[in-house]
Amino acid sequence: MNRQVILAAASQGIPQAHNFQIIERAVPDLATDQILVENHFLSVEPAMRGWLSDKGNYSNPIRIGDVMRSIAVGRVTASKCEQYPVGTLVTGWFGWQELAVARPEDVIRVVKEVDLPMSLCLGVLGLNGMAAYLGLTLAGAPIAGDTVVVSTAAGAVGSIVGQVARLLGCRTVGIIGSEAKVRACLDVYGYDAALDYSHPQLAPKLAEACPQGVNVYFDNTAGAISDAVRAQLAIGARIVVCGTASVASWDSPPTGPRVERDLLTKRARMQGFLAFDHRDRYASTVETLATWVRDGKLAWREDVLVGLEACPDAIAGLYRGENMGKRVIRLR
Amino acid sequence: MNRQVILAAASQGIPQAHNFQIIERAVPDLATDQILVENHFLSVEPAMRGWLSDKGNYSNPIRIGDVMRSIAVGRVTASKCEQYPVGTLVTGWFGWQELAVARPEDVIRVVKEVDLPMSLCLGVLGLNGMAAYLGLTLAGAPIAGDTVVVSTAAGAVGSIVGQVARLLGCRTVGIIGSEAKVRACLDVYGYDAALDYSHPQLAPKLAEACPQGVNVYFDNTAGAISDAVRAQLAIGARIVVCGTASVASWDSPPTGPRVERDLLTKRARMQGFLAFDHRDRYASTVETLATWVRDGKLAWREDVLVGLEACPDAIAGLYRGENMGKRVIRLR
Repeated sequence: MNRQVILAAASQGIPQAHNFQIIERAVPDLATDQILVENHFLSVEPAMRGWLSDKGNYSNPIRIGDVMRSIAVGRVTASKCEQYPVGTLVTGWFGWQELAVARPEDVIRVVKEVDLPMSLCLGVLGLNGMAAYLGLTLAGAPIAGDTVVVSTAAGAVGSIVGQVARLLGCRTVGIIGSEAKVRACLDVYGYDAALDYSHPQLAPKLAEACPQGVNVYFDNTAGAISDAVRAQLAIGARIVVCGTASVASWDSPPTGPRVERDLLTKRARMQGFLAFDHRDRYASTVETLATWVRDGKLAWREDVLVGLEACPDAIAGLYRGENMGKRVIRLR
Repeated sequence: MNRQVILAAASQGIPQAHNFQIIERAVPDLATDQILVENHFLSVEPAMRGWLSDKGNYSNPIRIGDVMRSIAVGRVTASKCEQYPVGTLVTGWFGWQELAVARPEDVIRVVKEVDLPMSLCLGVLGLNGMAAYLGLTLAGAPIAGDTVVVSTAAGAVGSIVGQVARLLGCRTVGIIGSEAKVRACLDVYGYDAALDYSHPQLAPKLAEACPQGVNVYFDNTAGAISDAVRAQLAIGARIVVCGTASVASWDSPPTGPRVERDLLTKRARMQGFLAFDHRDRYASTVETLATWVRDGKLAWREDVLVGLEACPDAIAGLYRGENMGKRVIRLR
C-alpha cells in the first residue's frame, strides 16, 4: 500500500491544510520503462501556490484527486527501466507520496553527491539552487562591485542568491521579515546589510544601505518591498522576478505604483525568470554549488517537517514565514 | 537681436502655454570654439514633459529663465570653431530660439543628407528615429515572424517602429487613439492591424489581432493600454518602455495592476530605453533610415507649426493627440 497527499478542494490564494487529503492506495504493477521510487524527502515550495491555481501559470494546474505535484528525492526499489536500476538515488517529479511509480521523464537527475545530505537535492542542489544561481547570473548579470539586493533573503532561494552574489564579489543587502532572520542574514549568509521590511523607515534604511544605488534586485516578493527597492535603482539596473511571496492572491491582480517611469529613467530591466527553462545548465550548476557546499563557502539551513501528515499545512506555513531555510518533509 | 522661448513658471504634469514666455535678447559675441546657428526647425517632444519636471529624470531639470531645451536643425552663420565652418548644416541642442550660440558639445551631428528635407533631422533621422530603431532592435530584439505591438503607433516614434518591424519581417499591430490614425496605420505605415484604444473591447480585439501572442511590445504610453497588451504576451516577450504618454503626471505615481505575475509566468522582460545611451550607433542608424526613406520604404508625416509663437502650446498639443506624425516648428 502507498500513502498519498491529494488535492481535495480547489485552492484560492494560498493553499491551506483543508485543500488536501491523505489517502491510501495500492501500488500498481510497473509497466515497461517505469520505476518505483521510495521517497525519502519531499519538497515544499512557495511556487506550489501557482501550480495549484486554475488561473494562467507556467504549468498545467493540478486537478482535484491528483497527487500533489512535488519534487522529491529517493531510491529506486523496483525497476523496469535499464537507465535507473534498483538502488539508484534519484530526484524528480515524484509527488507528495511515500512511493512513486515514475517514468524516465519524471526523473530530473541521478544524485551523485552521495557525500552530502540527500535533502540538499531539494534545496541548494535542487530547484532552489537552480533558480538562485541561474536567475542571478543569467537575468541579474551581476559584476564584482555591484550592489545586489535580495528579498526573502534568508529563504531557500534568497539565502543562496545572497551568498553566490557575495562569492562573485558583490555587495549584498538582504530584506527579510524578522529580527531572527536579520541575524541569520548577517551571521550565516554573510550579507553586508540586512533590513527588516516591517521597519517603518524601510525606504531611507535601504537608501543608506545602498549608497551607490541598486544594480541587481533579486525579487522573491513583489509588493511594497519591491516598490521600495525600485526607488533606489542605479542606472542600468536588473530586476530578476523570481517569486511573488508578498502577494496574497493574483486571482484579482493587486495594484501598485506603475513601474514604467522608474524603468525608463534608470534604463532598468525587469525580467521574469524560471529555472525550468534552463535544464541544460542544471548539471554544471549542481557541480558549482556542490563544490561551494563542500568547501564551506555556501551555508544552508533546513526546516525539516516529519511525515506525510505534515504536508497539508506545509505551504501555508511558508507564507506565514515560519520556516528558516529550505522546508522539506522527511519520510524516512 | 534674438528671440527665445524661456521657461516662465515651473511645470506640474503636462507643460502648458502659460509655463513659457517669449523674450528678446541681444546675441552675445562668440567666444573661442563657439558657433552661431540660425535655427530652421525646432523639435517638439513628448519627453519634454520629463525634461521640465523637477522630479528625478534622466536629465537635469530646466530652470526658470532658461531657454527651453530642444534639438533643432539649422545653419552655422558665424563660427569661431574650425570643426563647423560658416555654412555647415548642423543638428544639435540649440534650444527653442531663433539664433543659438553653441559649443561643439551641443552639436549632435553635421547633416549630410542634403537631398532630404532638413526637418527629417528632428524626426526619422533624429531622436525619434534613433529611439525607434535602436529601442526596437536593441531592447525589443525582434526576429522575423514575431508579432510586434506598438502604442502611439502613428506617432513620431511609433510610426517608425511599426515600419522597421515590418521591414524586419515581423507582423505589426498598432494601437492609436482615433479612426483617422487607424487609417494612417493601415494605409501609410503598413501595419497588419490597427486598433483604436478607445474601443470598449480593446482586450478581445487585441487577442484576435495577435493569435500567437505578443513577442515585442514597444510601449510609448504605459497605463491601461499597456495593461491590455501585457495580458497577451507570448513566452519570452520583450517590452520596450520608451515613453509614458498616457500618464498625465508622475508627480504622484499612478497605480495600476502589478506586473510581476505576467512577467514571471511569461518569462518576459520589460526594459526602459533611452536613445541617448547609444550615441555610438547614431551614424549607422541615420544611414540605414535615410536609405529606407530614399527607397520609399519608410513613410513619414510631419505636423509643422510655424513661428516661435507656436512653441508655448506645442507640447500640450502633443498630449492632446492633435498631431499626426512628427511635430516640428518651422522658423524659416
